[in-house]
Amino acid sequence: MNLGAKKVFIEDIRKEFVEEFIWPAVQANAIYEDRYLLGTSLARPCIAKKQVEIAKREGAKYVSHGATGKGNDQIRFELTCYSLYPEVKIIAPWRMPEFYNRFRGRSDLMDYAKKHGIPVPVTPKSPWSMDENIMHISYEGGILENPKNHAPDGLFVKTKDPSTAPSAPDVLEIQFKKGVPVQVTNVRDGMQHHTSLELFSYLNEVAGKHGVGRIDIVENRYIGMKSRGIYETPAGTILYHAHLDIETFTMDREVRKIKQQLSLRFSEQVYNGFWYSPECEFVRSCIAKSQELVEGKVQVSVLKGQVYVLGRESPQTLYNEELVSMDKQGDYEPCDASGFIRINAVRLKEYHRLGKKVTAPAK
Amino acid sequence: MNLGAKKVFIEDIRKEFVEEFIWPAVQANAIYEDRYLLGTSLARPCIAKKQVEIAKREGAKYVSHGATGKGNDQIRFELTCYSLYPEVKIIAPWRMPEFYNRFRGRSDLMDYAKKHGIPVPVTPKSPWSMDENIMHISYEGGILENPKNHAPDGLFVKTKDPSTAPSAPDVLEIQFKKGVPVQVTNVRDGMQHHTSLELFSYLNEVAGKHGVGRIDIVENRYIGMKSRGIYETPAGTILYHAHLDIETFTMDREVRKIKQQLSLRFSEQVYNGFWYSPECEFVRSCIAKSQELVEGKVQVSVLKGQVYVLGRESPQTLYNEELVSMDKQGDYEPCDASGFIRINAVRLKEYHRLGKKVTAPAK
Amino acid sequence: MNLGAKKVFIEDIRKEFVEEFIWPAVQANAIYEDRYLLGTSLARPCIAKKQVEIAKREGAKYVSHGATGKGNDQIRFELTCYSLYPEVKIIAPWRMPEFYNRFRGRSDLMDYAKKHGIPVPVTPKSPWSMDENIMHISYEGGILENPKNHAPDGLFVKTKDPSTAPSAPDVLEIQFKKGVPVQVTNVRDGMQHHTSLELFSYLNEVAGKHGVGRIDIVENRYIGMKSRGIYETPAGTILYHAHLDIETFTMDREVRKIKQQLSLRFSEQVYNGFWYSPECEFVRSCIAKSQELVEGKVQVSVLKGQVYVLGRESPQTLYNEELVSMDKQGDYEPCDASGFIRINAVRLKEYHRLGKKVTAPAK
Amino acid sequence: MNLGAKKVFIEDIRKEFVEEFIWPAVQANAIYEDRYLLGTSLARPCIAKKQVEIAKREGAKYVSHGATGKGNDQIRFELTCYSLYPEVKIIAPWRMPEFYNRFRGRSDLMDYAKKHGIPVPVTPKSPWSMDENIMHISYEGGILENPKNHAPDGLFVKTKDPSTAPSAPDVLEIQFKKGVPVQVTNVRDGMQHHTSLELFSYLNEVAGKHGVGRIDIVENRYIGMKSRGIYETPAGTILYHAHLDIETFTMDREVRKIKQQLSLRFSEQVYNGFWYSPECEFVRSCIAKSQELVEGKVQVSVLKGQVYVLGRESPQTLYNEELVSMDKQGDYEPCDASGFIRINAVRLKEYHRLGKKVTAPAK
Repeated sequence: MNLGAKKVFIEDIRKEFVEEFIWPAVQANAIYEDRYLLGTSLARPCIAKKQVEIAKREGAKYVSHGATGKGNDQIRFELTCYSLYPEVKIIAPWRMPEFYNRFRGRSDLMDYAKKHGIPVPVTPKSPWSMDENIMHISYEGGILENPKNHAPDGLFVKTKDPSTAPSAPDVLEIQFKKGVPVQVTNVRDGMQHHTSLELFSYLNEVAGKHGVGRIDIVENRYIGMKSRGIYETPAGTILYHAHLDIETFTMDREVRKIKQQLSLRFSEQVYNGFWYSPECEFVRSCIAKSQELVEGKVQVSVLKGQVYVLGRESPQTLYNEELVSMDKQGDYEPCDASGFIRINAVRLKEYHRLGKKVTAPAK
Repeated sequence: MNLGAKKVFIEDIRKEFVEEFIWPAVQANAIYEDRYLLGTSLARPCIAKKQVEIAKREGAKYVSHGATGKGNDQIRFELTCYSLYPEVKIIAPWRMPEFYNRFRGRSDLMDYAKKHGIPVPVTPKSPWSMDENIMHISYEGGILENPKNHAPDGLFVKTKDPSTAPSAPDVLEIQFKKGVPVQVTNVRDGMQHHTSLELFSYLNEVAGKHGVGRIDIVENRYIGMKSRGIYETPAGTILYHAHLDIETFTMDREVRKIKQQLSLRFSEQVYNGFWYSPECEFVRSCIAKSQELVEGKVQVSVLKGQVYVLGRESPQTLYNEELVSMDKQGDYEPCDASGFIRINAVRLKEYHRLGKKVTAPAK
Repeated sequence: MNLGAKKVFIEDIRKEFVEEFIWPAVQANAIYEDRYLLGTSLARPCIAKKQVEIAKREGAKYVSHGATGKGNDQIRFELTCYSLYPEVKIIAPWRMPEFYNRFRGRSDLMDYAKKHGIPVPVTPKSPWSMDENIMHISYEGGILENPKNHAPDGLFVKTKDPSTAPSAPDVLEIQFKKGVPVQVTNVRDGMQHHTSLELFSYLNEVAGKHGVGRIDIVENRYIGMKSRGIYETPAGTILYHAHLDIETFTMDREVRKIKQQLSLRFSEQVYNGFWYSPECEFVRSCIAKSQELVEGKVQVSVLKGQVYVLGRESPQTLYNEELVSMDKQGDYEPCDASGFIRINAVRLKEYHRLGKKVTAPAK
Repeated sequence: MNLGAKKVFIEDIRKEFVEEFIWPAVQANAIYEDRYLLGTSLARPCIAKKQVEIAKREGAKYVSHGATGKGNDQIRFELTCYSLYPEVKIIAPWRMPEFYNRFRGRSDLMDYAKKHGIPVPVTPKSPWSMDENIMHISYEGGILENPKNHAPDGLFVKTKDPSTAPSAPDVLEIQFKKGVPVQVTNVRDGMQHHTSLELFSYLNEVAGKHGVGRIDIVENRYIGMKSRGIYETPAGTILYHAHLDIETFTMDREVRKIKQQLSLRFSEQVYNGFWYSPECEFVRSCIAKSQELVEGKVQVSVLKGQVYVLGRESPQTLYNEELVSMDKQGDYEPCDASGFIRINAVRLKEYHRLGKKVTAPAK
């Protein structure tokens, strides 16, 4: 209000964020470019959806945001707005020449803020940009823009330094139904957490204590640049590993291959800002379908920055202990494998027959 | 020779294994079902290729192996043999009824071994099966067949327990050319390793000391069963993380997406035993092509079971510090992003226009 | 009964075939290796499902079929049986040495048939194998095994020779709902057909009259061989073109790209015999989901072996005549495209900046 | 020059267009959204590359084009320019408000042209837009914007009406090396054509005479709109069918599956204007690699709008007549297929064992 706003709306949408955005990402094992768990990307459509709700309710024809003109967030916010409120007008100061020609970088802006008494979280002590939500925090910009520079001491906010984290693990049992966590039990003390927000917060606490979820990456923005980011995703990292385990345990191999492809699409859609799009709706509905029988319990050990899967069980698993046993025959005739291999070799022998010269990979 | 063999050939093919099999897997970031770095799968065609070489040289018309009739290794060995020596006959005792009806499991076999003075590595003290090579060791069978059972104390051979590993990290600088490591420097002591086998062994040593590379998974065999395995891949795990980082740093985003798809194919081909196949040759040659400019140095910290990427540099990177900077404009016009976003929204607005009802994911 | 059977069941399952097997293939635009509309492949699980139903009802523990040991059909029949009746035993004479050593080819078998008065459809006049159902007929074997040989005059059974077919087209309007044809109108005479079997039969009649649906291909069998087949698929060919048109007209571009990938999987699953598999069920359910809004009417002209799409309309289309018009601006700002293009060029300029030498394709 | 230009360059780049742009598309079997052979898309980078060459030679800092602000061509021209000449400025009048506000559609523009004596090819008699090159012609806009309207009589320029085309076919033998046509023989008269431009022109002539290559589609533009186009691609259609045939005949099944995926990427890249991009270079080089052994001869009959493959031969084929014969055993043991099928059924039986309820596709 000090800055001149006529009305301010502060909403707690953590529960919706967990259930409607994070859970589908857990089901998908969503990961961008093999490393980023999409903590910021998932938050954007959640925020913008609420913003649009309020704008419509208040009769606002314009919405605005403070994302820069080089990043992904502007796209994520605005595509959400255009999808849900097609006739809205969007004001993005960082893309208006009268703004970005006056404020040529963060330091100009901090000078302005200082001069006008506006509090900002970026100080000379932490000269980088941070963005935080219940799933994730990101650090970018400033001294981190040199991709060779190491993360400075004291950067991390959500997780303890793994080297000084406790040397005794926490062992958790995470129970899934339809690919979504429904219960977390600390095996040592028997404490249980059930509701989505509560169990997610508890996982954040345990992961944070043990230094789990830090990454330092260079990623490819939708806008076509490479950027460097340092991220913490504590609870999300535990859930990624646990869900991957229960999914592989319960899902048919071939279904999972197809689902994996859908998840790659989903991750890219979410990263690029297309949560509210026909393709992301379609993919989410296919992935949800694949999760119908993904249920059971995974035990994990959380220690010194790592999540170790210890074991798993499920009423729905396709794992068949007798069938796979080295010590029992089960309903399986080993000599069938001879035919299986020889038929698989038919094509390979034909290739050889033709005397095709194998071209070695370029060196 | 004690068992009645007429000739025994013991070959050191570790250098070939590293250069011809592990390096292409590093270039590919090969990983099966998101977790398994393929340490056993890669070794099989390497072994069988040498076996075929010797068989041809010695005029042998039959080759044999001791892989079980339920596993992947029989396929990997035999497809290699059929590809490289199509007219060979293969003797696989575990698939011959006269054999597997007499020895109904590993305990029958151990009794037989004991009775006839044949030394075997599986003892009552470690009642599971192990398979080891310079890249990897696997533990399967016995008490591990219950997927809920945790790995017993003392199982691991290649890596220290992370909880008692040193609390000071080793920091390594790994240099890549064409996607392959060519130099490893220990940043603290300045020690360097250059040749493939030597640097790979050194990475094994450092990773082993810090407990890096353990996983416990249930995977899907080619034969159609789910099986549980516990694996250690020390050097491979460091290289996986370091290569992923330098690749993302230097490779164009869209090239990488295509290469990622090829890598998924490659991983499946290798897992299923199709190293010597037209499709795997084709994919290897495409992946090698993608690696031509993947070069530079990655610094990683190895600590308590984890590999942390600290920073990277490259003469070939597409990363442009000025372009991406939050504090400089670079060769970039922020207002272009407005058009970019609005054009991306055209399709989304049309979808909305039609008033299509978004179907929520099945619950 | 003359051959010694105790009971014979002759069932008319054409309606089930059309609705439960052909319709999902139409929705998928299923096509194997870019040419084959899967007419035989789709029939196999339909037949085997009925066979299993009868076997279970009659208490039969064995089922049998006459497919050869080199083809796809044995796999399609048997995987269906094993899926739906896992404990069944299967008798496949063509794979039993006592059978195939006695009858070394089709001519031995024809001699036997002649000697024992068994009528067979392959005569010296048409020395090839035929397999027919309501969707499709295939010709293989005999003189067709030389892939250079042209199809002999008089081979084709379901379609007229295009060169002597009528020179006036039939114009049809095909109406779809949820990606499935629900009405066919002959535009000239106004005749309409509605029920699945009736309209499919009518399309067969029109396509047959105009010589539509012939192909001559070499394809890759699941078993690893290449084989040559000549096929006719009259109604299926019209529906392929008509559905493709209405789908592209009504479905979002990005949804369609994902659906296209699923269809490639589906086609391969069906070809390989995996109709009754978890992955095919999953893919069918995703594809069905994608078809919810695929509705409208397509007009096609059928003439001299060709199907020409003439026009289309839909209550659900994303096509926006005003938006796309060259003569109206619509809700579109042309200058937005400048930003769209320049942002897309950011990545390309960076690539150029690095002075990367473009490697020309191998010549 | 009458319009005030200082210099005009008219170049014959048909040979480069055929060899450097069309041939890679033939190798790829490039096709966009299952129907469009990319005749316009391929021409754009060819034209813009030459434009950039001249601009650089002449010291021009600006280039211009007349593509509209709603289409794909603006993107194809400009991305090529930005890739090859990153610092160039582009003038696109159709995206400049002072231009498009004055000329609100094609009729305003035609009035202006008339008034100023500028000849234009769009007349009231043919009220649609045409774009032609040696491969292709497209018709869009005007009365064709209503997707229900049929193509009017007399629209087509490159092909005869199939209904009045000759009723005797031309039979051509097309010879390929490395996936590219190197010789076309008319089987009736023995006439041969060898050089790229000459044989392509001859194929255009034959296809045109027989009415081959017409399509009427709605497609998805990169810009996010659906648009309706009617296209003729005579030679390209013959080559599409012939190459598809020789490729399937000579290429390993699994290699082809991977190549098919790459081709889908390639087609999308070309359609969207990314010919000169790192990803398109990469994909072209992979596809070229796949074509090394794609050689042989295909015979096709061209008749009444259709291309029928009649037969094929190759020195490099993986087709093995003895192996696949119904009348010979070849190097194949039918009973191996029993094991092959039973192992493939392991996974299906497990799925059944679990009693998983198959969820029917949504209706």
